[in-house]
Amino acid sequence: MSAHNRRVAGHRLPRRDGVGKVTGKHVYAADFKLSGMLYGRVLRSTRAHALIKKIDTSRAAAMAGVRGIITSADIPQIRYGTAVRDTTVFATDRALFMGHAIAAVAATSLEIAERAVAAIEVEYEDLPPLFDPEEALKSDIRIHPDWETYKALPIISRNGNIAGQARIRVGDAEAAFAKAHKVYDHRFSTALQHPGYTEPRVATADWDANGIVTVWCNTQLPFDTQTTLAEILDLPAARVRVTVPGIGGGFGGKLRIGVEHFAALLARKTARPVKVMSTSEEELTAALPRQASIVLLKTAVDKEGHLLARSGRIIVDCGAYAGSGPGTAAIALQVMAGPYKTGALAFESMAVYTNKVHSGSFRAPAGPMANFAMECQIDMIAKDLGLDPLEMRLRNVVKEGDPGPSGETHTSVSIEECLRKAADAIGWHDRNPEPGRGKGIACSWWMTTGGSSGVYVKINPDGSATLVSGAVEIGTGAITGAAQVLAEELSLDLTDINVTGVDTQAAPFDFGAQGSRTTFSVGNACLAAASELRRQMFELAAKQLEAPIEDMKLQDKHVVAGNKSISIAELARISRLAGGGLIAHGTAISPAPAYDPTRVQNHPLPVWNTPSYHAHAVDLSVDQATGKVTINRYVVAQDVGYAINPTYIEGQIEGGVAQGIGQALSEEIVYQDGRVMNANLTDYKMPTAMDVPEIESIIVECRSAAGPYGAKGVGEPPCIEPPAAIGNAIAAATGCWPNSLPMTAEKIVAAMQKQHS
Amino acid sequence: MSAHNRRVAGHRLPRRDGVGKVTGKHVYAADFKLSGMLYGRVLRSTRAHALIKKIDTSRAAAMAGVRGIITSADIPQIRYGTAVRDTTVFATDRALFMGHAIAAVAATSLEIAERAVAAIEVEYEDLPPLFDPEEALKSDIRIHPDWETYKALPIISRNGNIAGQARIRVGDAEAAFAKAHKVYDHRFSTALQHPGYTEPRVATADWDANGIVTVWCNTQLPFDTQTTLAEILDLPAARVRVTVPGIGGGFGGKLRIGVEHFAALLARKTARPVKVMSTSEEELTAALPRQASIVLLKTAVDKEGHLLARSGRIIVDCGAYAGSGPGTAAIALQVMAGPYKTGALAFESMAVYTNKVHSGSFRAPAGPMANFAMECQIDMIAKDLGLDPLEMRLRNVVKEGDPGPSGETHTSVSIEECLRKAADAIGWHDRNPEPGRGKGIACSWWMTTGGSSGVYVKINPDGSATLVSGAVEIGTGAITGAAQVLAEELSLDLTDINVTGVDTQAAPFDFGAQGSRTTFSVGNACLAAASELRRQMFELAAKQLEAPIEDMKLQDKHVVAGNKSISIAELARISRLAGGGLIAHGTAISPAPAYDPTRVQNHPLPVWNTPSYHAHAVDLSVDQATGKVTINRYVVAQDVGYAINPTYIEGQIEGGVAQGIGQALSEEIVYQDGRVMNANLTDYKMPTAMDVPEIESIIVECRSAAGPYGAKGVGEPPCIEPPAAIGNAIAAATGCWPNSLPMTAEKIVAAMQKQHS
Repeated sequence: MSAHNRRVAGHRLPRRDGVGKVTGKHVYAADFKLSGMLYGRVLRSTRAHALIKKIDTSRAAAMAGVRGIITSADIPQIRYGTAVRDTTVFATDRALFMGHAIAAVAATSLEIAERAVAAIEVEYEDLPPLFDPEEALKSDIRIHPDWETYKALPIISRNGNIAGQARIRVGDAEAAFAKAHKVYDHRFSTALQHPGYTEPRVATADWDANGIVTVWCNTQLPFDTQTTLAEILDLPAARVRVTVPGIGGGFGGKLRIGVEHFAALLARKTARPVKVMSTSEEELTAALPRQASIVLLKTAVDKEGHLLARSGRIIVDCGAYAGSGPGTAAIALQVMAGPYKTGALAFESMAVYTNKVHSGSFRAPAGPMANFAMECQIDMIAKDLGLDPLEMRLRNVVKEGDPGPSGETHTSVSIEECLRKAADAIGWHDRNPEPGRGKGIACSWWMTTGGSSGVYVKINPDGSATLVSGAVEIGTGAITGAAQVLAEELSLDLTDINVTGVDTQAAPFDFGAQGSRTTFSVGNACLAAASELRRQMFELAAKQLEAPIEDMKLQDKHVVAGNKSISIAELARISRLAGGGLIAHGTAISPAPAYDPTRVQNHPLPVWNTPSYHAHAVDLSVDQATGKVTINRYVVAQDVGYAINPTYIEGQIEGGVAQGIGQALSEEIVYQDGRVMNANLTDYKMPTAMDVPEIESIIVECRSAAGPYGAKGVGEPPCIEPPAAIGNAIAAATGCWPNSLPMTAEKIVAAMQKQHS
Repeated sequence: MSAHNRRVAGHRLPRRDGVGKVTGKHVYAADFKLSGMLYGRVLRSTRAHALIKKIDTSRAAAMAGVRGIITSADIPQIRYGTAVRDTTVFATDRALFMGHAIAAVAATSLEIAERAVAAIEVEYEDLPPLFDPEEALKSDIRIHPDWETYKALPIISRNGNIAGQARIRVGDAEAAFAKAHKVYDHRFSTALQHPGYTEPRVATADWDANGIVTVWCNTQLPFDTQTTLAEILDLPAARVRVTVPGIGGGFGGKLRIGVEHFAALLARKTARPVKVMSTSEEELTAALPRQASIVLLKTAVDKEGHLLARSGRIIVDCGAYAGSGPGTAAIALQVMAGPYKTGALAFESMAVYTNKVHSGSFRAPAGPMANFAMECQIDMIAKDLGLDPLEMRLRNVVKEGDPGPSGETHTSVSIEECLRKAADAIGWHDRNPEPGRGKGIACSWWMTTGGSSGVYVKINPDGSATLVSGAVEIGTGAITGAAQVLAEELSLDLTDINVTGVDTQAAPFDFGAQGSRTTFSVGNACLAAASELRRQMFELAAKQLEAPIEDMKLQDKHVVAGNKSISIAELARISRLAGGGLIAHGTAISPAPAYDPTRVQNHPLPVWNTPSYHAHAVDLSVDQATGKVTINRYVVAQDVGYAINPTYIEGQIEGGVAQGIGQALSEEIVYQDGRVMNANLTDYKMPTAMDVPEIESIIVECRSAAGPYGAKGVGEPPCIEPPAAIGNAIAAATGCWPNSLPMTAEKIVAAMQKQHS
């Protein structure tokens, strides 16, 4: 329906970058080479918490082929970070986790660099470690003894090992609990999950004669990488040029600086280009995984299952640095509130330091961990009250105009439609078709992150358009999605839009490939640029056609006025002669909605922009003997506002569900005494094609007021509900919830045994 | 004086690209490499004019390491060209000059490619050749038998071997000649001159999976190369991406496509990146040299030496293709008119095909050839009339408000000042200080070529600015000159301006590094962009400072309003959060002045924009026995309007004079029976540091109305006057003019012997 009146937007057009990616022609950052390039490797701590007494690089430095070694002593002493500036390039006086960078080597081959790293001698003196965040909350041991001296966002509250603490309070929760029909109290836990991108973190850096460093890397946020690198290198930002040749997946794991700083520092030291690529072991011990968490959730209901109050605490295990921990923990509060009307809320988040790897903003940060708790508990309550879980949800979900947790107003609400469509598709009427088989449902809402996007658009003399943007294509539509909007507005074909690679020097600022914002924001920027281009074209055409501007429209690559017309190509050629060509700059930013600041405290994202609504339903079987889960069917009903490219959206849904299945059933970076026990891609169990069923996508289109053609953010939501939907289906099949991610066969068997004991 | 009230513009600041260029860090196109790259070489005709009966590539194709061979049969049959579309990638059925491309080979090494080229067998059948343009005018032989079928600019008149013919007619020249006191009639000739850039023509091409070809090359006109390549490859222009890593000199020899098409075609054929670089032999037999010419010039004067009328014809030898010949020949007409008031003019230009290398637009195309004739003749007349040559010039030069040859009005005229300053500096009062030593003077005017330039400018979060432009830096200020204007307007330092490399995909259109237009046009575009950025900054600052916009000014990297101020860096950061950042697009184009179309016929550049005026004076000695010329002193007084960077301008003057000395005294591509006899850089004699004296530059600033701060074009003029000034000084020293360039020792001795015989 949506596509009917548009030529390009709304259609299932092939990705502009698809052919190169499937044929292997596409140059990823990992493929990128410079002549005369050195190879860098990083020495990492073998201790979880220790004083570094001495680093002896002399043996390594003497090896043939070694061109430079750097340690903390060689570089500016700067702490960087997003919410909290607690991070250093290398461990300074102390190692804070196994995997903490200690030194880096550049050599003429990777093999020599590896041997040199092994030849560096480090003398440690162990300190007592903290691995458990709840223990860290109580302990007198301080992972950051100088915490009080660090810079941080003003909203960050500092306290012991807590790196951030936010609150949402709505109404009088205590009073509501006191007069409730029933109160439920549960504890859930989730595990550390690697983003699972195909291409490891990689960067190649080279300094030019003017002291400008260019870094070719696979960051999702080139502009953030630029400013962070500038801080680390102690340079003005414009002396750092970040360009992204290609990026083999990101999922939030490539938002923050990864190996770019090592490459840039080694290149400065050696005066040669240097490439640094993470190994699989580094990916699993020193990248930016999704945090492990503990969620304590208490809910009060009346007899009919209406939610009267919810209170709770999420404890997010940041690891050694705050990273995205404070933000992630805070976002959990909105997720836990859910797309539900709840009388009162009293939620609190805590991001806690431990001696483990620091963590990032994996796709829908906080989404699955909070939703797993929140939505499994809904099913537990429904079971206890003898209600159908779908029916209980439908009684509580928000409707158009209801207030959200921050006091904002819910608009273009589609949660009921999503729930009903997912339930219908999975065959909800028959939740237990056979013993050991069950169906589960879960729903959520999620924001479309704000931040500004800018584009330059220029019409070429062949009538095609070139789109220059700072947005990286990680599968979120920077290339095809935005180009469909632009083509639609200019009456061009999708293949008429040329999108340039990202380069912080040449491109307008973009807030980055994060937060389900790319097609939404870059699309809006394209709308603005196209509007300006139409103005320019109509003005020029008015002279050429001798027709009034108000009669003009763009149609099939021409400016048409009555029975007169002139092609866009011709106008582009004329405009070059007349001066400058047809060029426009477009910018978009979604202002944050109004909210009630008395409800939300110390929160970096106090209110959500343009939320989307979605429901997942799953049909699975559990082997009663082994606990092995087989997913029979998986259905997603997701409100995307307007489907600019339905195929693209289905791809996003399928990928997100696959990651959610991994988090639900198998993925966990397993720590034992501070050491990762499965630091390789054999023992770290991501789902394979054999483990993922065909995913059925139902695209719901409830137009937003802010997005291009009514679009909403799409990319992150698909991985929010899988753990909860699968957890609820496991419970439908077995009668019990494991309450802890991943819900491995062992945990399911244990839960079943406990139930029967 | 000019610099006093400006912080950045008008100052002798170091070139932004200087360090990389002098330290060898700068990556020129010749340094550029891609991994997996093949090497291309071109087979060239050994016949001057011949039918090609057969090309046998079988032996070459069978050689190990050969990856692809292309001939005319393998590629789209397209004729391209600027004024006349007569050019093909390869010779089709006939070879038109020795050096004409016949085939191209890509192989895994340059050595293999060379051996394969040698193994291609070509069967020729000779045709009668035409080497002399005057003979070509009379001959029935047609170099382009299908001439009538080619596409060409509407102004091109087709006739036999004439590729173009323009006229300027002012007043009644015949009547003026009839009643003149005296009439002088002379014949001059000039030779084929290689531009002498350091880096040969080179291009590396690579096709991506979407069928877009990227070409890294050293063109002066990336956008022209883009559109020409698109024609040759039969693609829409936007499928061709041209980027210029660096360019080691151009001087007009890199305006038009050189080897880019070979690289792109071979890369398409082999599905591999291919690099093609000209050899020195190819540079001297198949590049785009300055045309040889014959000038027939007749001048009528009254008793006081006032110019009553001038008539004449310039015959420009285009070689096998029209190339820049028709335009060059036409431009000569304005040069021959000179910065003089002349009662009547009757000039005609002819661009003529011959079986020699086709030619380009070497720095000030037509300038030196026409000025040599025109200014030597002035001295001849002065001598005959017993006038001082300076005095004769001063009697005739134009003054403010005088009409130019096309009927335009001369404004900001400085020719008298230039003549007097050059004469004073050289010590004009003593023209023959000793036997065999003489002083000469010559003057000219020259246009600032129009065409549009666009820039994007963006303020970075460190308060610096990034300038994205499509203008190539060949020493004409694309980087430093434009950046000085931008820095001035934004109250920044020059080092705060970051200039990106040129990329036709990312950059706004620019008419190219030609015609003394770069700093002028890109500077004007920077003025426009800076004005828009000030508007954006003031608007944002108004909110921050709570001050009215009308009180605001930019000062020392801050917006200042009374005693309140905010830094540009801070505004840049705020603007990213508020949306989009501080970004602007600026465009500049100089409209052509009004002119009288009845005066100018079939002329591609019928009137000159923003002309500059200049005079050269030289003091030299001629060895009376050998004819060897030693230049003692060389003075240039050049009106630059406003000196944005005096050091840069002096560099332009010094380089241009060196090239002019080469053209005057030694440089000539010597043809004998269609074969270049000195196709190497040993026998082709460019002046060395030993041959060039210190050049004394006198910068005259007579502000233009159109250029940034009053600037005029600077780059081309310095090479216009050297042949005439040196010719006149030789005459002062010896009593005779050789009348033919280069004025070698042999020619000078011959002229002296003829005089004394």
